[in-house]
Amino acid sequence: MSLRVVSVVLVEPVAVFEFSVAVEVFGITRPEDGIPDLDFRVCALDPSRPLQAKSLAPFAIQASHGLDGVAGSDLVIVAATPIRSDDDYPGEVLDALRSAHAAGATILSLCSGSFVLGAAGLLDGRRCTTHWMYVDAMRRRFPEVEVDGDVLFVDDGDIVTSAGTAAGIDAALHLVRRELGSEIAVRIARRMVVPPQRDGGQAQFVPTPLPECRADSLADLLTWLVDHLAEEHTAASLARRAMMSERTFARRFAAETGTTPHKWLTQQRVLQARRLLEETDLGIEQVADTVGFNSAVVLRDHFRRQVGVAPVDYRRRFAVRSA
Amino acid sequence: MSLRVVSVVLVEPVAVFEFSVAVEVFGITRPEDGIPDLDFRVCALDPSRPLQAKSLAPFAIQASHGLDGVAGSDLVIVAATPIRSDDDYPGEVLDALRSAHAAGATILSLCSGSFVLGAAGLLDGRRCTTHWMYVDAMRRRFPEVEVDGDVLFVDDGDIVTSAGTAAGIDAALHLVRRELGSEIAVRIARRMVVPPQRDGGQAQFVPTPLPECRADSLADLLTWLVDHLAEEHTAASLARRAMMSERTFARRFAAETGTTPHKWLTQQRVLQARRLLEETDLGIEQVADTVGFNSAVVLRDHFRRQVGVAPVDYRRRFAVRSA
Repeated sequence: MSLRVVSVVLVEPVAVFEFSVAVEVFGITRPEDGIPDLDFRVCALDPSRPLQAKSLAPFAIQASHGLDGVAGSDLVIVAATPIRSDDDYPGEVLDALRSAHAAGATILSLCSGSFVLGAAGLLDGRRCTTHWMYVDAMRRRFPEVEVDGDVLFVDDGDIVTSAGTAAGIDAALHLVRRELGSEIAVRIARRMVVPPQRDGGQAQFVPTPLPECRADSLADLLTWLVDHLAEEHTAASLARRAMMSERTFARRFAAETGTTPHKWLTQQRVLQARRLLEETDLGIEQVADTVGFNSAVVLRDHFRRQVGVAPVDYRRRFAVRSA
Repeated sequence: MSLRVVSVVLVEPVAVFEFSVAVEVFGITRPEDGIPDLDFRVCALDPSRPLQAKSLAPFAIQASHGLDGVAGSDLVIVAATPIRSDDDYPGEVLDALRSAHAAGATILSLCSGSFVLGAAGLLDGRRCTTHWMYVDAMRRRFPEVEVDGDVLFVDDGDIVTSAGTAAGIDAALHLVRRELGSEIAVRIARRMVVPPQRDGGQAQFVPTPLPECRADSLADLLTWLVDHLAEEHTAASLARRAMMSERTFARRFAAETGTTPHKWLTQQRVLQARRLLEETDLGIEQVADTVGFNSAVVLRDHFRRQVGVAPVDYRRRFAVRSA
């Protein structure tokens, strides 16, 4: 792939932030940074009619090109737009995306734009991502697609999908790095006052309410467990508490939670640690102790694996300081 | 200040990314996050005519309100637009900003929007910031304004200014935190897949070419110094090298560099360290050694003070990895 012609396809109502990421990274002249201008096109089904933005204020965006602008693009960006059933995306837009992809263009979706790609059939058998809020909906809608909800973007070669909102910046800068080199990506990032690469994935930004306990027979036990995370628990001790044989307990636990007692406990301990890091000033050692990890080292290890960043970094980002 | 009515004032050509930050933080309905809708208005001098965006593609934005929409706002946001002489901003826009401010509105400028505030006379005697590229221009244009180029935003009460581009997100979330509380700010940040607070300031994003040596008489010495940062230098040893008395050397050095030999050397050492962190795999200890700091501890201390983040964090963000 070379990168000379970049088009953005808008679908009404337009999610303006995601669209603006495409404009900022690919659609601005930057001669003072020694970056050559791209042939940048903002395309819509009917460019003579301004498209309503997704906003509380009824403002609109007037595209510069019709869908014929998509033809000949090296990169086609699908901006975000509210999710609807596959048939309710304009058929002409889906056709334009399929044709561009067949002609060799790389396709980049931003946030919920991944559903447009899915509706066009471009994701079948592929790996992709989308906004963390829509990961489950995406899996249900497109069972033949592998949806990774933890990362900021997925580069599957000629199909690149970004996670939620600002993750579009990460995906766009990644494509700049891939096609135009690291130096240009770093220059654009600096102008945008963002890091060219971010730590951790999307997982760290997902809020974590306690999972609703729908398991009838183990519901009481699970509720009790969450209140007693600090204590030591083994499969044997839990089976005794549930008054079942270890074998029955293991089978029942897997059926009702989809995982093992050990993994479930670790998950709950990390969830609880996140909450304590957000809302208290407890030291890491105390947090580990409170949620039932043997040491700060063990907490750090599980935390990194599950959330994608270290506990101290997580606290720095999400601690609720009084205003 | 309460926060119910928020208006954005657009000036042509519209910097779309900065505008979209205002839309994303204040102009979207988020009932699923329990956030009440604001009265959000996109205002322009003539809302019947679409405003050209600042982009390689000739697309346009149609505002929802005229400048009368600014009246009654609790918060007025001035989106970015290319810098011009004070008289070339529409006088009606400057009037609307002055009236809103006089009526008690908080004013938030994004990126180069700070120049619009300056042209309206709203920054006189105030502290503010702007994009790092424009800090010097801002200081020259508005000598009565204290411009801080290192931070992501400046909260001066009823006037809040953001640094470059994405720093607008930091400033906007800061205002949400200030007016609506931390919890709502955290919820919006998560939806946007950004941290509610970022580490370090704008300084870490500023590229650092070696300053051009315009000092005629010391030019050779300074060039030599940059090539010999690893060695030890004192005012006495440098004066000897320049074949001047220490007193003459100190006076000349101050006249030509605006600083002392010690401070200048420290600056150059940190600059060189940044370059090594970006482009090499040298350990922190080796970097310190190469640029002439006695130890990693000394490097870390000066680096943090000058750049705003620790060397390891800086490397993680800016290291040029091969694509």
